[in-house]
Amino acid sequence: MRIDILTVLPQLLEGPLKESILKRAAEKELVEIHIHNIRDFSTHSNKNVDDYQYGGGAGMVIAPQPLSDCIESLTKDRTYDEIIYMTPDGKVLDQRDCNEMSLLGNLMIICGHYKGIDHRIREMYVTREISIGSYVLTGGELAAAVTVDAIVRLIPGVINDETSALTDSFQDGLLAPPVYTRPAEFKGHKVPDVLLSGDQKKIDAWREEQALKITKEKRPDLLED
Amino acid sequence: MRIDILTVLPQLLEGPLKESILKRAAEKELVEIHIHNIRDFSTHSNKNVDDYQYGGGAGMVIAPQPLSDCIESLTKDRTYDEIIYMTPDGKVLDQRDCNEMSLLGNLMIICGHYKGIDHRIREMYVTREISIGSYVLTGGELAAAVTVDAIVRLIPGVINDETSALTDSFQDGLLAPPVYTRPAEFKGHKVPDVLLSGDQKKIDAWREEQALKITKEKRPDLLED
Repeated sequence: MRIDILTVLPQLLEGPLKESILKRAAEKELVEIHIHNIRDFSTHSNKNVDDYQYGGGAGMVIAPQPLSDCIESLTKDRTYDEIIYMTPDGKVLDQRDCNEMSLLGNLMIICGHYKGIDHRIREMYVTREISIGSYVLTGGELAAAVTVDAIVRLIPGVINDETSALTDSFQDGLLAPPVYTRPAEFKGHKVPDVLLSGDQKKIDAWREEQALKITKEKRPDLLED
Repeated sequence: MRIDILTVLPQLLEGPLKESILKRAAEKELVEIHIHNIRDFSTHSNKNVDDYQYGGGAGMVIAPQPLSDCIESLTKDRTYDEIIYMTPDGKVLDQRDCNEMSLLGNLMIICGHYKGIDHRIREMYVTREISIGSYVLTGGELAAAVTVDAIVRLIPGVINDETSALTDSFQDGLLAPPVYTRPAEFKGHKVPDVLLSGDQKKIDAWREEQALKITKEKRPDLLED
């Protein structure tokens, strides 16, 4: 998989994308991530990328020219399965979307900043709009990092033990059951007996029951789907 | 506001927390963010923080000892308004939660990694569990960065022009209307006439109408609340 991320703040993405799972995925050559600074494509003498909004109001807007040139410099070299724009008014990301996108080849992700990007760019190039949740962030960079992490970890071979991802929350439509590790007693708090029983059948039944109970309590919406 | 973040991968948080809005908020002394490496509190000779899960299964669990010691080293110095654990089975974050938390004084945020943290730590210390959405991430670090960004930008003085945050998506229960900037025509695509009209009343009416239309189309769930 190849992912191109377009941003006005590349330094914001460096930590998240160069560490942990993504670093390992890159080393194994399972994914290639390229960060592009939209500012490098500005034809303004001072490399401006933003401008006041038409119609007035607070907050700057990323202008069409640098973004359009950056997008076209990439699309002339390869075809993208999706050109994604991270935006609070996009479709709210869920695990199903992540599973689906983990099977794609080339993804382009545009991060907005300030008040967002000029709406014409969305109409001209963008094929998919994603929101990571019902809250507003300073920019699309963290949202892009979240989306990339959620997708890349599903590519076979990225996580060492693949069954680990399959037993995660959401994969079976349920939240995951509680987890415990040693010691069996910590400051007076004990691990549930069943987990120490060695009876795998009982353990599996307990986990299933817990997952269902927690989902009913905390996220009944997941059971309605 | 003071925010303490507990993690096994501090380097993942450095980019996001040292750039952009958070950097500015720290410089203005509106927020103080401290990152703590859970590993530093491990009493293991090799500074281990994770261990196999009781009951078997793939994926490691963060052990109680280092986390408990890290939490208690902080709570002995000050009182926390919330001790937050980032987890897929937490309450799904929304703008209302962010508004509410932006008024607090001391927040502690625990990032899970691998399969999560020992469940007893959640029962012993955690006062609030947050999920940023219905998808699974490699760790809680990006989720913590998202939460911190969404909260900190709401603290008065962090964003230069405060009305900018007030006109964001979700603040009035609606998605934001489209934004445009110069030029008025770009590659044959024009800015809507009304935004060039100079008639502020008409512009405001158009924006309201667009916000309602977009919300109905894309996020009808927001209108039901």
